[in-house]
Amino acid sequence: MTQPASFQRARSREAKQARETAILEAARSLGRERGIRDVTLTDIAAEVGMHKSALLRYFETREQIFLELTAEGWREWSTALRTRLRTTPTADPADVADAFATTLAARPVFCDLLAQAPLNLERNVSLEAVRDFKLVTLHEVALIGAELDRLLGLNEQQTLDLVSTATGMAGALWQMATPGPRLRELYTTDPRLGHAVVEVEPRLRRILTAFLTGTRA
Amino acid sequence: MTQPASFQRARSREAKQARETAILEAARSLGRERGIRDVTLTDIAAEVGMHKSALLRYFETREQIFLELTAEGWREWSTALRTRLRTTPTADPADVADAFATTLAARPVFCDLLAQAPLNLERNVSLEAVRDFKLVTLHEVALIGAELDRLLGLNEQQTLDLVSTATGMAGALWQMATPGPRLRELYTTDPRLGHAVVEVEPRLRRILTAFLTGTRA
Repeated sequence: MTQPASFQRARSREAKQARETAILEAARSLGRERGIRDVTLTDIAAEVGMHKSALLRYFETREQIFLELTAEGWREWSTALRTRLRTTPTADPADVADAFATTLAARPVFCDLLAQAPLNLERNVSLEAVRDFKLVTLHEVALIGAELDRLLGLNEQQTLDLVSTATGMAGALWQMATPGPRLRELYTTDPRLGHAVVEVEPRLRRILTAFLTGTRA
Repeated sequence: MTQPASFQRARSREAKQARETAILEAARSLGRERGIRDVTLTDIAAEVGMHKSALLRYFETREQIFLELTAEGWREWSTALRTRLRTTPTADPADVADAFATTLAARPVFCDLLAQAPLNLERNVSLEAVRDFKLVTLHEVALIGAELDRLLGLNEQQTLDLVSTATGMAGALWQMATPGPRLRELYTTDPRLGHAVVEVEPRLRRILTAFLTGTRA
């Protein structure tokens, strides 16, 4: 009936990983439904069917869960963006801007997390967790930079400026575009507030097209 | 010993206004010291020497106090920016970008508030308070737009794109540049994290110069 110790460790590692995946999936699903801002640790524990104290054996804080989702978001978005850039026919600023705008706007939870990370998420986790997170983002920026160098001849600083504008504005515009149903109704019913209605994708596309056109000029 | 009713009303209006000004000044001072994120209603009440319940006779919530400071920040920044733009000798994108970057970077509390407003401040106040706030920002954007039309011939959409990029990135970059002493030390001591160190003014100047150059191209 006994099993080799290595097999038991493997099973326990797998079980731990399965739990972590379930916790992240629950947090992502709640974040998609109601916005990251309104999801508490208690909500996540309830969604995944664990006690809060048990959940804290897997993650330090609510913020660490969402910072981990932000890191996953960077890897997944960067892969999708680089796939798009590799098949972009011409090195035209408008095409590159379109690749950034459409891949970001298609990922609303990631946009929400991009705005939350520097304000809230990075501030309530261990230094080690922030270090790991920053290394993930800088690695993905370097991979994106290789494509931008090939397509448009951008240098390292221009890549950092472009990626921080794309991700910074995706986060900021998403927050403005998703003010909740009460405010959205106010913006659309009061004609004086027409300009308060923000559409993420077209505005992001215009901003990045202008930025890239000007960078190459 | 009695005084005319109109004089009493005036005194009471003045007293109310003096109280509101003191509350806003206390909130601004605490926000400058420790960041908006870490200032509670209890902190503001203690700083101004009132009970929390008394303070709530002047403002609905903590968020309304900071939203009012954000509106004040828009008026004050817009005035400074337009004064700079009126004395800008040439209609050069770099000069206009410099006017935006230097006036925003010189106002750290306003940068902090710009990032907090759509995420947190607009979501915990009455619809009336958000409406008033939006009308202030749209009015200032229109005034800034008149200068940008005169200098660079920007239309309404280009002005909205520029001002949202300037204020959105000022907020996002300020949050990244001000991660607190613990994280700042991590970024400056781990050589792998060199690119995590952000300087608001030069990056904002480069981004807006590229945007304006591209917009005019």
